[in-house]
Amino acid sequence: MDTRKHIEVCFTPGEYEYFKDEYEIVVVIDVLRATTAICAAFDNGIKSIIPVSSLEEAHEYKAKGYLVGAERKGKIVDGFDFGNSPYTYMNEKLRGKEVVLTTTNGTKALNVAKNAETVVVGSLVNLEALCKWLEEQNKNTLCLCSGWQDKFNLEDTICAGAISEHLLATGNYTSDEDSSIAAKYLYLSAVDNYLGFLKASSHRRRLKNLNLNEDIKYCLTPNQTDVIPILKDGKLVQL
Amino acid sequence: MDTRKHIEVCFTPGEYEYFKDEYEIVVVIDVLRATTAICAAFDNGIKSIIPVSSLEEAHEYKAKGYLVGAERKGKIVDGFDFGNSPYTYMNEKLRGKEVVLTTTNGTKALNVAKNAETVVVGSLVNLEALCKWLEEQNKNTLCLCSGWQDKFNLEDTICAGAISEHLLATGNYTSDEDSSIAAKYLYLSAVDNYLGFLKASSHRRRLKNLNLNEDIKYCLTPNQTDVIPILKDGKLVQL
Repeated sequence: MDTRKHIEVCFTPGEYEYFKDEYEIVVVIDVLRATTAICAAFDNGIKSIIPVSSLEEAHEYKAKGYLVGAERKGKIVDGFDFGNSPYTYMNEKLRGKEVVLTTTNGTKALNVAKNAETVVVGSLVNLEALCKWLEEQNKNTLCLCSGWQDKFNLEDTICAGAISEHLLATGNYTSDEDSSIAAKYLYLSAVDNYLGFLKASSHRRRLKNLNLNEDIKYCLTPNQTDVIPILKDGKLVQL
Repeated sequence: MDTRKHIEVCFTPGEYEYFKDEYEIVVVIDVLRATTAICAAFDNGIKSIIPVSSLEEAHEYKAKGYLVGAERKGKIVDGFDFGNSPYTYMNEKLRGKEVVLTTTNGTKALNVAKNAETVVVGSLVNLEALCKWLEEQNKNTLCLCSGWQDKFNLEDTICAGAISEHLLATGNYTSDEDSSIAAKYLYLSAVDNYLGFLKASSHRRRLKNLNLNEDIKYCLTPNQTDVIPILKDGKLVQL
């Protein structure tokens, strides 16, 4: 009998419903930039982040006095405190605080996955720490890519492929889905040069046009922190 | 001004709504096996194929005296004349006939795309002829992969990547979407050995378990026919 656990990749939140029943751990990935910013925030000592899907919910929290980040289409939404640039979260003022965050894709994916047994946040910046932790859990694991407005994106897929490749290499995991096989191939094509490989990616171009080159470099540089944000009672906290 | 046309790839019928408005030509792809079987049927001189989505519609045509093919999960549905094995369609009795076809994924994709200006059928077996024809049209083109029950699949994506790569090489086309970039990379990884590359693909395993190895070999052998099936008034006919 094959006792190996599954490591699979779902390309978009819209496809999650075809995957969700079989996985004990869901890793939500939004490399550019929500889950990278979330990792940066915990690395900087934030206490917790409440992810919300809609601007309406974000406004409600703002009215109650919370610090609220809100990003849509790569830009900070008017009237909110910050967006999803990782650099925003490297601020002393945020240490020990609880903040609220809504983004175009990442918080949507977190919301879609919220009923899974365990939901953690993945990105390239916490890749190695996350892979080691996942390996120790030895459970059926799904990488849920946030995509871009319900479409496939390259950077999340490559991050998912990196996690898959790590877990498959332990010999304790297997992949059945074609999306998982594709993610692994795309990761292997990209691993030596993330920036070069992703030069043409649509969201990278989108952010570049918004003068977010420094953000992109940070987001595509692996293993800058050991934090593993985890969803507990609707809030992201440090594991 | 960039006057190049777009060649893009949509991984599943479910994502088509995010793509559909910008493309004059949609190429529907279901390599294993619906669109391959459709190409084989026209190569064998069939007159027309009426693609229908549901078994109910298929039953209605059957009651009217039509020859009807019906496949679900790789098997012929009880009570119908044939499924979607390409070899079924290489039969003298089908020459000059109009038949009806419903399959798990391929006819669903045809149905989703039916309101596009031009809908043609793509597969590896008519790849070269199709690519030449598309190149002559010089229009915005979307490859719509049928996938497997709304999930991504490798073989359709690789076929879409092959079409993209051909059109991009003319210099008259460009790709913007991350899915198109990924399809091209996956095609370039697979091109020297389709059978080997797709060894692990989920649907190939599914068909292998049904003893359909001969079908698989036929479906993965490029350029066996010059036919280009096209949708006209709800029926597929030879262009």
